[in-house]
Amino acid sequence: MRDVVEIGLGKTAQRGYHLDDIAIVPSRRTRDVDDVSTEWKLDAYPFKIPCVAHPSDATQSPDSVIALGRLGGLGVLNAEGLWTRYEDPTKILEELASLDEEADATKRLQEVYAEPIKPELIGERVRQIREGGVTVAVRVSPQHTLALAPVILDAGVDLLVIQGTLVSAEHVSTTDQPLNLKEFIADLDLPVIVGGCTDYKTALHLMRTGAAGVIVGVGADEWSTTDTVLGIRVPMATAIADAAAARRDYLDETGGRYVHLIADGGIATSGDIAKAIGCGADAVMLGEPLSLAEGAPAGGAWWHSAASHPALPRGGFCIAGEPDGSLEQLLYGPADRPDGQLNLFGGLRRAMAKCGYRDVKEFQKVALVLDRA
Amino acid sequence: MRDVVEIGLGKTAQRGYHLDDIAIVPSRRTRDVDDVSTEWKLDAYPFKIPCVAHPSDATQSPDSVIALGRLGGLGVLNAEGLWTRYEDPTKILEELASLDEEADATKRLQEVYAEPIKPELIGERVRQIREGGVTVAVRVSPQHTLALAPVILDAGVDLLVIQGTLVSAEHVSTTDQPLNLKEFIADLDLPVIVGGCTDYKTALHLMRTGAAGVIVGVGADEWSTTDTVLGIRVPMATAIADAAAARRDYLDETGGRYVHLIADGGIATSGDIAKAIGCGADAVMLGEPLSLAEGAPAGGAWWHSAASHPALPRGGFCIAGEPDGSLEQLLYGPADRPDGQLNLFGGLRRAMAKCGYRDVKEFQKVALVLDRA
Amino acid sequence: MRDVVEIGLGKTAQRGYHLDDIAIVPSRRTRDVDDVSTEWKLDAYPFKIPCVAHPSDATQSPDSVIALGRLGGLGVLNAEGLWTRYEDPTKILEELASLDEEADATKRLQEVYAEPIKPELIGERVRQIREGGVTVAVRVSPQHTLALAPVILDAGVDLLVIQGTLVSAEHVSTTDQPLNLKEFIADLDLPVIVGGCTDYKTALHLMRTGAAGVIVGVGADEWSTTDTVLGIRVPMATAIADAAAARRDYLDETGGRYVHLIADGGIATSGDIAKAIGCGADAVMLGEPLSLAEGAPAGGAWWHSAASHPALPRGGFCIAGEPDGSLEQLLYGPADRPDGQLNLFGGLRRAMAKCGYRDVKEFQKVALVLDRA
Amino acid sequence: MRDVVEIGLGKTAQRGYHLDDIAIVPSRRTRDVDDVSTEWKLDAYPFKIPCVAHPSDATQSPDSVIALGRLGGLGVLNAEGLWTRYEDPTKILEELASLDEEADATKRLQEVYAEPIKPELIGERVRQIREGGVTVAVRVSPQHTLALAPVILDAGVDLLVIQGTLVSAEHVSTTDQPLNLKEFIADLDLPVIVGGCTDYKTALHLMRTGAAGVIVGVGADEWSTTDTVLGIRVPMATAIADAAAARRDYLDETGGRYVHLIADGGIATSGDIAKAIGCGADAVMLGEPLSLAEGAPAGGAWWHSAASHPALPRGGFCIAGEPDGSLEQLLYGPADRPDGQLNLFGGLRRAMAKCGYRDVKEFQKVALVLDRA
Repeated sequence: MRDVVEIGLGKTAQRGYHLDDIAIVPSRRTRDVDDVSTEWKLDAYPFKIPCVAHPSDATQSPDSVIALGRLGGLGVLNAEGLWTRYEDPTKILEELASLDEEADATKRLQEVYAEPIKPELIGERVRQIREGGVTVAVRVSPQHTLALAPVILDAGVDLLVIQGTLVSAEHVSTTDQPLNLKEFIADLDLPVIVGGCTDYKTALHLMRTGAAGVIVGVGADEWSTTDTVLGIRVPMATAIADAAAARRDYLDETGGRYVHLIADGGIATSGDIAKAIGCGADAVMLGEPLSLAEGAPAGGAWWHSAASHPALPRGGFCIAGEPDGSLEQLLYGPADRPDGQLNLFGGLRRAMAKCGYRDVKEFQKVALVLDRA
Repeated sequence: MRDVVEIGLGKTAQRGYHLDDIAIVPSRRTRDVDDVSTEWKLDAYPFKIPCVAHPSDATQSPDSVIALGRLGGLGVLNAEGLWTRYEDPTKILEELASLDEEADATKRLQEVYAEPIKPELIGERVRQIREGGVTVAVRVSPQHTLALAPVILDAGVDLLVIQGTLVSAEHVSTTDQPLNLKEFIADLDLPVIVGGCTDYKTALHLMRTGAAGVIVGVGADEWSTTDTVLGIRVPMATAIADAAAARRDYLDETGGRYVHLIADGGIATSGDIAKAIGCGADAVMLGEPLSLAEGAPAGGAWWHSAASHPALPRGGFCIAGEPDGSLEQLLYGPADRPDGQLNLFGGLRRAMAKCGYRDVKEFQKVALVLDRA
Repeated sequence: MRDVVEIGLGKTAQRGYHLDDIAIVPSRRTRDVDDVSTEWKLDAYPFKIPCVAHPSDATQSPDSVIALGRLGGLGVLNAEGLWTRYEDPTKILEELASLDEEADATKRLQEVYAEPIKPELIGERVRQIREGGVTVAVRVSPQHTLALAPVILDAGVDLLVIQGTLVSAEHVSTTDQPLNLKEFIADLDLPVIVGGCTDYKTALHLMRTGAAGVIVGVGADEWSTTDTVLGIRVPMATAIADAAAARRDYLDETGGRYVHLIADGGIATSGDIAKAIGCGADAVMLGEPLSLAEGAPAGGAWWHSAASHPALPRGGFCIAGEPDGSLEQLLYGPADRPDGQLNLFGGLRRAMAKCGYRDVKEFQKVALVLDRA
Repeated sequence: MRDVVEIGLGKTAQRGYHLDDIAIVPSRRTRDVDDVSTEWKLDAYPFKIPCVAHPSDATQSPDSVIALGRLGGLGVLNAEGLWTRYEDPTKILEELASLDEEADATKRLQEVYAEPIKPELIGERVRQIREGGVTVAVRVSPQHTLALAPVILDAGVDLLVIQGTLVSAEHVSTTDQPLNLKEFIADLDLPVIVGGCTDYKTALHLMRTGAAGVIVGVGADEWSTTDTVLGIRVPMATAIADAAAARRDYLDETGGRYVHLIADGGIATSGDIAKAIGCGADAVMLGEPLSLAEGAPAGGAWWHSAASHPALPRGGFCIAGEPDGSLEQLLYGPADRPDGQLNLFGGLRRAMAKCGYRDVKEFQKVALVLDRA
């Protein structure tokens, strides 16, 4: 059973497991891959695949949000990114796409993100996406939610994503009037996705705010430095499973309100997607993997939001390389490489077939093996 | 005892162990190496060594199947490989042998395997092997068994190998009429080897189909990407030991029907062979190691069957290098390198002698130590 | 609970955990970063940050001790270092700063430290620091405490640091009259910091000597070779937590005497600082990280005291590189790199805010996760 | 307590630990390094240090055996090595010293060791060592003991070392008359060292043969390939501790016969020596570390005996590099490098002092921490 380890006299730590530590285990039944569905539905919004984009300027522009939506996923534009700071950020994105020295990139990111947000641009970007005919989702940070949400909502979005590295249902402040998530969400009449969080309790509290979806994880990948800078490292298999327990308990507590879990962190391949869902996620949030698509806004470069923090950046800069294929090929194949980065959801579908499951919800019950850590 | 670990609240995983995690432990007795036997017998077919070839075109041509058979092992021709798609695949094999860019190899594999299977060639290949005077074994995938088996059987094989990455006794399909393994095998009058599988339950169900041998594992080696693409990774020590438990229970259930376990995956050296048998295998399936023999069909290149999948390839391409020695030297030595890749079965024999065991069946009881993971 | 593992029949070992093995876990509350305090107070001496310098000549000169003190930390001059062996060691420091061959550095260190200590220089250095208007702390080894302490105390220091790689409260000698720490400290009227130590019992005994602070750890970092030379390796998370248990028990035993724990070893980033405090430390001792500041005495080179031992050196020599920034930037940012080596205490402050804690003492209670080892 | 892990249903493995997995833990007492003794006595033969040479031609010639003996250790000449196959092997040793291609070395070793042993040379070598005025020890393999022992004994040795990779007290053979160790040793009137072995039971049985010393381990180091070739890997911390339990039980069983344990494997630094003794060893067998001494017979090259096996070599060839220092400096320092390879027994002495122990036998009780695996 779950280890609580005494790391020293009287000081305990819970063991946590990463997606790399586990693998899914085929059961005694197999199934035709064509009989398997990867559909996902959040509130009234249906999706062909359980795929949400991490709201990074590296991958999410109005155009790429539309493209992802048309292919059956959910794009998310960052209301605090370059598209709302600059009338036309394409030159800056081109410059970032052409950086070839990782060392100087942090300073340049800090500079370009020092430009103030222009609220009027938010409306413009939202209208552009809406015209694309897809579900419109915009991300705002908890700190700026009270200031920016009215503009965002006026512009007419379908889903609001309130996302910081770590969001709690109870932010304490002696200076500002902090955001009361529960009251804020109760006043809205659109579904809200909120996170990230890393444990059962925070997940449960975030569910109790009335959110339709909770983001699990801090979006960490190999470029993230949340661990070295803050000492925070999230074992995603454990974080997802714990949040799934919160989802079950909240379902019971409310007599049937199902809150979706969106796993954000440690997901780079179709195998990782299968494992995240096998741990209990309803969908995955993809960051760097989407930067490998042809036509990605930053030409293949990748960075986290936190990588541009003015005083405490927490993420490296991945220099742009050649794209792996079109966005469609990335999501649905065919793959012409065996590394699990192409045909991401075809890989998920096949994993489900090999294990005998028909849909994403069922696949959350797949057996797991722990062979590392 | 066996750990069932709670990786998160209410979500468990069983711990699994790889062959690398364990080692065999000499007991208080030693034995002369000349007193040790590595013989193996499957149904009516005796072999000098417990060695089955993985049915990859990289190592198994009609000629190399004959050569392995004459040296005391069991070669297996793939009924869905290049030899049944092309009248004369030697040019293609030469081309693959000369590829020196791993990156382009996947596309080329996808192209050459796009050629349809020509059933008439199956008979021709079987006849050629039969004329070589060795036990004739042919591999077919579960999907094509109903279509191809009649041709194969007509050609007169000794053993039929029904092998996919993962095979279950219960394949569910809403569109095709799926293969019912139990009925299919009952109707045959030749021994069938079936697999791969990875757990106790699937192994037991496959035994109940009437198979003479069950393949344990998915053939994973360092070129395999089943893990990154599908999230499936098989800890072989555990998989073999669990299947051995199924063999014991099935033996009891049937009052004496012994089903052979053929371990397929993670076996590259004589030490690995010793460990696989020490975990309970009756024989090992060798893939990449056989590609190191002089005269290997693809000149030393290596790839998995799944590496040529048209939409979701799951295996890299190992570029051809210099051969390590003749097939005989590979199997029986003498070795002039200390890396465990030459004299594969001489190494097994010596390991058995150092631990005091006389034959393969006895050696399944050798003590193990766990010093990794 | 804590594992006592039988590594062989009748021989046990306790499991220990390194800072890298653990991470801190955000709780359900978050807090404004401006509401968080990193203040620390040792006896009558207040500090803005819980930062003590490791007394290495590579980072601690009279000038840099003053600089650190003015920035709110505690600098420590080594009474047995180059500044008390040479009237003017700047030439030697410049030479060490210019060494570019790690291999020869050990011999050169052995040579320059072969020069005898000149007690009269101790007074001079102390006066210089005192004139800088900061808290004056000087380090002496247990072996030389009886000889050098009078000179040091006469010079008028605020804090005495008695530090060896490993210090015990009970040193046994058949030849010398060993230092009786308890009697020695009782006779002093200034606070003493003593260490390092690595376990509960030694920490408790050192507390009972009357020390105001106890150093936990042997200062090991990636340049240390205490492990390969002596077989001694300190899992710092465990060592700190065990010493914190000794602090609690001593607090109870004395009805309220609080002894501060200063963690020395394995701390290179702001994340490490957060973890060390999360395990129970009151402050951290920084060695190599301070060598990255502009104007560091050895120009960026780094070595341990033990690296210059005449017969058994235990530490490599880190060749000088470019500085990372000013000492102020190192401690307080802003960081223009995401690797956790700049803005060390801004990183700590943000980690505390993300976890909802207000001060260092409270933060010792933060939850931990164990996801390695 | 000791884990017996079920790696699969009904198949168990004992957990084992390597010296690298553990570290020694200082206790609350420290001691003057000059008060510490590293003396060792085997039967009537006293040694300044608990150091036995592994009988490899790379480090043990008649001259180097004498040199080690004069410095207080025990050299061992291999009666089946180059010095008893060739009248003058210096040319061959020079050639091996000059090899700069690891790949070809195995073949060359196989060739030079194909030369038959000349029994008359054994006597000559023994006389030469005896004239050096040191304890004379000669190694013979179990297979050749019956044939060669008479010659060796006639030549007048002090200690006989019967050593194979793995030796058991019960060798079974259907063709040869196997060596009955118990009868053989009973008939001798000189102390015998026998091994290697890896577990409690074999160690106990070897003690019951009447041996004065038992070798624990198979001499594995980073050049050994016993693991890849045979699947045998010895976790030395566990093997030593288990053999120490056998020593205790045999002491009880015999009412006081103390058999010495000589640890052979995984020992490259002074830290490793400290750990091996901390696990219960009485002395260590040094292989490759002695090849780093000026004037080593093969000029710094290193290979295992098993590396020259004609059909199944089990060890790589370490190409000669620059020597680290004189044999005396290697054993007693001073070290001018911090990597634990110089001043091997000065390092041991200091480790003992830091932990408060006076002699080797006492130091077997030192506390251990497990922080890996």
